[in-house]
Amino acid sequence: MDPFLQAAIDEAKAGLVEGGIPIGSVIVHEGRIIGRGHNRRVQKGSAILHGEMDALENAGRQPAKVYRESVIYTTLSPCPMCSGAIALYGIPRVVVGENRSFMGEEAWLRSRGVAIDVVDDATCVALMHDFMRDKPALWNEDIGV
Amino acid sequence: MDPFLQAAIDEAKAGLVEGGIPIGSVIVHEGRIIGRGHNRRVQKGSAILHGEMDALENAGRQPAKVYRESVIYTTLSPCPMCSGAIALYGIPRVVVGENRSFMGEEAWLRSRGVAIDVVDDATCVALMHDFMRDKPALWNEDIGV
Repeated sequence: MDPFLQAAIDEAKAGLVEGGIPIGSVIVHEGRIIGRGHNRRVQKGSAILHGEMDALENAGRQPAKVYRESVIYTTLSPCPMCSGAIALYGIPRVVVGENRSFMGEEAWLRSRGVAIDVVDDATCVALMHDFMRDKPALWNEDIGV
Repeated sequence: MDPFLQAAIDEAKAGLVEGGIPIGSVIVHEGRIIGRGHNRRVQKGSAILHGEMDALENAGRQPAKVYRESVIYTTLSPCPMCSGAIALYGIPRVVVGENRSFMGEEAWLRSRGVAIDVVDDATCVALMHDFMRDKPALWNEDIGV
């Protein structure tokens, strides 16, 4: 297992334990995690802290150069908001745990030159499968449905 | 002057007084402001709190129906991240103070059925003109350049 995807999964699991939505993310620069986070909708009453956004926020203010040399790992295919943030900062590569549960803006990111690697990881799929079964209204809220 | 655009401008000016980036936003539902905010990069060391994102966060968790009946006002054309958030939540209309200083993802939003009204407001233009002249490095950081 890629240790960075594992770190994103650990974040997702931490969110689940907190009663939240199990999606996690880490940002990696030069082989080191510079920001990590997970969805905080429930925990902070937040409409914007998806996993990727929380990781970006926790990475703090970075020079443009750092983003352009980074990889973002996320347990689930990035939604339009998170894809927009990836595009804004010019992060060149996204490692996606899975996109069976939700297909984000992968095509749009690719059209902008972003490399997307979909791992199709069984743990990521199971986390979302169980969560969407157990809390469908919360999941719909998170994607504006 | 549209009172909601004025409220967004008031937010932008509040950000400037705080030493921040002068971009403000309000979200209006059924004729009432349900969330307002301004760019907090400087104030909170935030990489994600653009004006529109701050307004979304301050509106709190809303049902999908509310977003789909809302209008978001922003003093400056929305960047990819903020445009992605607008797309995620299905906000159907964006009132943009100006897009001379920065052209965001207006074409992409229109392609997704979002109505964009560009006011080309002189106060919004002046706020960004002066800010970009006075703090170009900070402005570049905010748009990942």
